[in-house]
Amino acid sequence: MKLIRYGQPGEERPGLIDAEGVWRDLSDHVTDLTGEALSPDALAHLGALETSKLPLVPQGTRLGPPVSDPGKIVCIGLNYADHAAETGRPAPDEPMIFLKATSALSGPNDEIRIPRTSEKTDWEVELAVVIGTHAKYITDAQAMDHIAGFTVMNDVSERAFQNERGGQFTKGKSCDSFAPLGPWLVTKDDITDPQNLRLWTEVDGTMRQDGTTADMVHPVAKTVAYLSQFMALHPGDIIATGTPAGVGAGIRPDPVFLKPGQTVRIGIDGLGEQRCETVPD
Amino acid sequence: MKLIRYGQPGEERPGLIDAEGVWRDLSDHVTDLTGEALSPDALAHLGALETSKLPLVPQGTRLGPPVSDPGKIVCIGLNYADHAAETGRPAPDEPMIFLKATSALSGPNDEIRIPRTSEKTDWEVELAVVIGTHAKYITDAQAMDHIAGFTVMNDVSERAFQNERGGQFTKGKSCDSFAPLGPWLVTKDDITDPQNLRLWTEVDGTMRQDGTTADMVHPVAKTVAYLSQFMALHPGDIIATGTPAGVGAGIRPDPVFLKPGQTVRIGIDGLGEQRCETVPD
Repeated sequence: MKLIRYGQPGEERPGLIDAEGVWRDLSDHVTDLTGEALSPDALAHLGALETSKLPLVPQGTRLGPPVSDPGKIVCIGLNYADHAAETGRPAPDEPMIFLKATSALSGPNDEIRIPRTSEKTDWEVELAVVIGTHAKYITDAQAMDHIAGFTVMNDVSERAFQNERGGQFTKGKSCDSFAPLGPWLVTKDDITDPQNLRLWTEVDGTMRQDGTTADMVHPVAKTVAYLSQFMALHPGDIIATGTPAGVGAGIRPDPVFLKPGQTVRIGIDGLGEQRCETVPD
Repeated sequence: MKLIRYGQPGEERPGLIDAEGVWRDLSDHVTDLTGEALSPDALAHLGALETSKLPLVPQGTRLGPPVSDPGKIVCIGLNYADHAAETGRPAPDEPMIFLKATSALSGPNDEIRIPRTSEKTDWEVELAVVIGTHAKYITDAQAMDHIAGFTVMNDVSERAFQNERGGQFTKGKSCDSFAPLGPWLVTKDDITDPQNLRLWTEVDGTMRQDGTTADMVHPVAKTVAYLSQFMALHPGDIIATGTPAGVGAGIRPDPVFLKPGQTVRIGIDGLGEQRCETVPD
């Protein structure tokens, strides 16, 4: 099942994409795609609906992030060996984690706003895991039971803020519009193997990242179980599982960063694509 | 005005403490102390109520965190020179920031749960700022206009998770129950000078931290304005402004950490006290 949220920012309504690719409204069946709506029972209820009878969503409607009001976005750093190498750091022995402010969330085709003093805004296509049920101290084998589904996130990053302004990654990761999410939340039953998905980034028509989730250092199940040793994961929480090689900061001899007026497309097999224009903030 | 949230976890109701120190219910006047309820207009409305006519809250009722569902908790690291010194690091030239998961929030007298594999759980009393109105690219001089009030936060920290498990602080800062908040949200009109407040921590009756916000490296207004250059601050967001010297990790010759069965009291002048027992998670 492909779930969407559509409408203007802050006024999104829940919907789904049916087998024919038609967008349909779910407002009569669920208030919004909050964590509560992502439990196995709630998803089974939606999955049992006769989609052909659901109201149509008007064409051209904006998509919002496909999860409403997630409690946290946990990101995994350096989780592809080739990306770790391009940053000049070793791939970590255990998952390296940081948080991205949920205020950075935006829709999958919204503008990416370049912060006023930014000189090094960069892209990172990532497979995002959406939690469906509360997880704490779980094992790798239990992890998939706690996942509702998957989506695409661009972990947009300002490298100077992230690495040259003292301390932690936060400053470069949490800027407004730095977490385009979507287009859809694809429930896990529709993804045969989350460790075998191609993911890519194209900037102004030039392919910049072209990897596969098969190359993750710490795969999804291990990562979710690992995080749950440190903190409870709640329904709706998002885990961005790291990016493959090809970020702007890694381009040699001269790194390449985003300026206003560019087009960033990212995508993952089976999870759809994003298309964001860059604008000044 | 001293605002509270009282009741069982997840079922808290809004209230206030009147001039006689009596807890009174605000449910007829505001749904909950979310960001929306903290705007200047909303607070003025509450401030104009005749408190003696408000219903009483039953004695002995649990207090929850005095802000409901904050979007983010931004923490400032090494923001007191004496604390930076005890960690062996220089005080940073510009505010050093990190995020704490909001899932770590708990009430001011709830149990602090020691994570299963923890050996270095530590305390950090902090002045917490609560945002009242949206702030982005603001100046130091504008910052106070965007603040609703102040409260107390214990930035509980697992030092091994924080510093010895690879990468960022997140693992040691975001454990469940690692952000006891409260007892009250004190509106800013009741705090003459946020840079002249004593703050302290007592563990099992031994005074461990005893500092003053006068010693902050980057004071409140500067910190809020600085953060707003990187990300929007939204009503209800919490900014924990760093801790003075005296954390367990800084005790010489042997650091001291929390074990189950201890009592941690922290407090700040005019903002009240917390009293938390430690238990195994």
